[in-house]
Amino acid sequence: MKQLVLIRHGESQWNLENRFTGWVDVDLTPTGVQQAIQAGESLKAAGYDFDIAYTSVLKRAIRTLWHAQEAMDRLWLPVVHSWRLNERHYGALAGLNKAETAAKYGDEQVHIWRRSYDVRPPLLDPNDPRTSYNDPRYAKLKREEIPLGECLKDNVARVLPLWEESIAPALRSGKRVLIAAHGNSIRSLVKYLDEVSDSDIMEINIPNGVPLVYELDDNLKPIKHFYLEK
Amino acid sequence: MKQLVLIRHGESQWNLENRFTGWVDVDLTPTGVQQAIQAGESLKAAGYDFDIAYTSVLKRAIRTLWHAQEAMDRLWLPVVHSWRLNERHYGALAGLNKAETAAKYGDEQVHIWRRSYDVRPPLLDPNDPRTSYNDPRYAKLKREEIPLGECLKDNVARVLPLWEESIAPALRSGKRVLIAAHGNSIRSLVKYLDEVSDSDIMEINIPNGVPLVYELDDNLKPIKHFYLEK
Repeated sequence: MKQLVLIRHGESQWNLENRFTGWVDVDLTPTGVQQAIQAGESLKAAGYDFDIAYTSVLKRAIRTLWHAQEAMDRLWLPVVHSWRLNERHYGALAGLNKAETAAKYGDEQVHIWRRSYDVRPPLLDPNDPRTSYNDPRYAKLKREEIPLGECLKDNVARVLPLWEESIAPALRSGKRVLIAAHGNSIRSLVKYLDEVSDSDIMEINIPNGVPLVYELDDNLKPIKHFYLEK
Repeated sequence: MKQLVLIRHGESQWNLENRFTGWVDVDLTPTGVQQAIQAGESLKAAGYDFDIAYTSVLKRAIRTLWHAQEAMDRLWLPVVHSWRLNERHYGALAGLNKAETAAKYGDEQVHIWRRSYDVRPPLLDPNDPRTSYNDPRYAKLKREEIPLGECLKDNVARVLPLWEESIAPALRSGKRVLIAAHGNSIRSLVKYLDEVSDSDIMEINIPNGVPLVYELDDNLKPIKHFYLEK
């Protein structure tokens, strides 16, 4: 039996303000910090342990992982940071709250962006200062790999190479894997693992800071999954 | 010019109590946390940036790195955790303070252990519960790689393979390297880089939480080094 645990980061400042965040590097709220600590404490209390961790290059996920590591006394775990686990890039919507977005684009359009698998948000202009082109954490990527706005389908497409090249081999070799990531990068993994349809995946919401435990067979097919509530 | 920065962890609880620590996983004091934050702030203020970080598998070094990363807004740096950067293993002396050690072994013997390059402290018995044999962070090591007590010469011998196999190649490829480690693992690197003699190295003390900057030429020979004071 292979063990994989997914944790969406704790509440961020823009979760609290109900703003589209995406690749903007917003930090946790005090509640988010507590959720992250609780996630680690729940895992430790239930007897979970890990051999390797993965996270994004965004601080709300990294800090969630750090707090969970502290709660488990596992500061020394090897950690892989990958942009492939970043949140879905919300393009020109980043920073807007629901009301602002509806006022600007209309309720119906917002509903389509939130609930379609393959409709992208309005893209950033490549000359927009909000692009990630000059951010050193993405300096090794090709220009065309750095998104200007993503639908969930795009997110799945960039998460899966990390799964295939690193996470799945780690699991196959018997490593117990912890992933601290984001609502949509975790959705992407859930869609893949549970073969969720394009329409159904948009109805699945991943709560902040609650460990989602997968038990996988030797072919990395899910035997079961469940949330580890405190 | 290649850039390497070494930081000894901030003050630990046992630094404060003047106890031999070695591989015992003692945490930072509040002063130690402040030193680590200050180290990161000094580096940022002086314009230093990094592409990769190395640390030990002991929390006083890892936490020092984390605080420095936070101060530099570089949570996403790739980090390599290696037991090879651990503090010198103090064997049966771990946990004793200077006075206790002198009372037990005599002043002259303590002086020899503290100031000789190649005289080991009294070793732990392999059956002593204080060995690291059952610690999961060392589970992949061969039994004979896990020390029962080390002199500085032993420490140098286990640090250098990490230098040769990982740190030096990273520097050669142009990466700016940050290492958060321990008094004696940093001494080991300083001895190697500056070709310090076996006797002179024992007189060099590395302060807690002050970045030690090395500028290296293309052959990784030091051009100069200096402490970055706040």
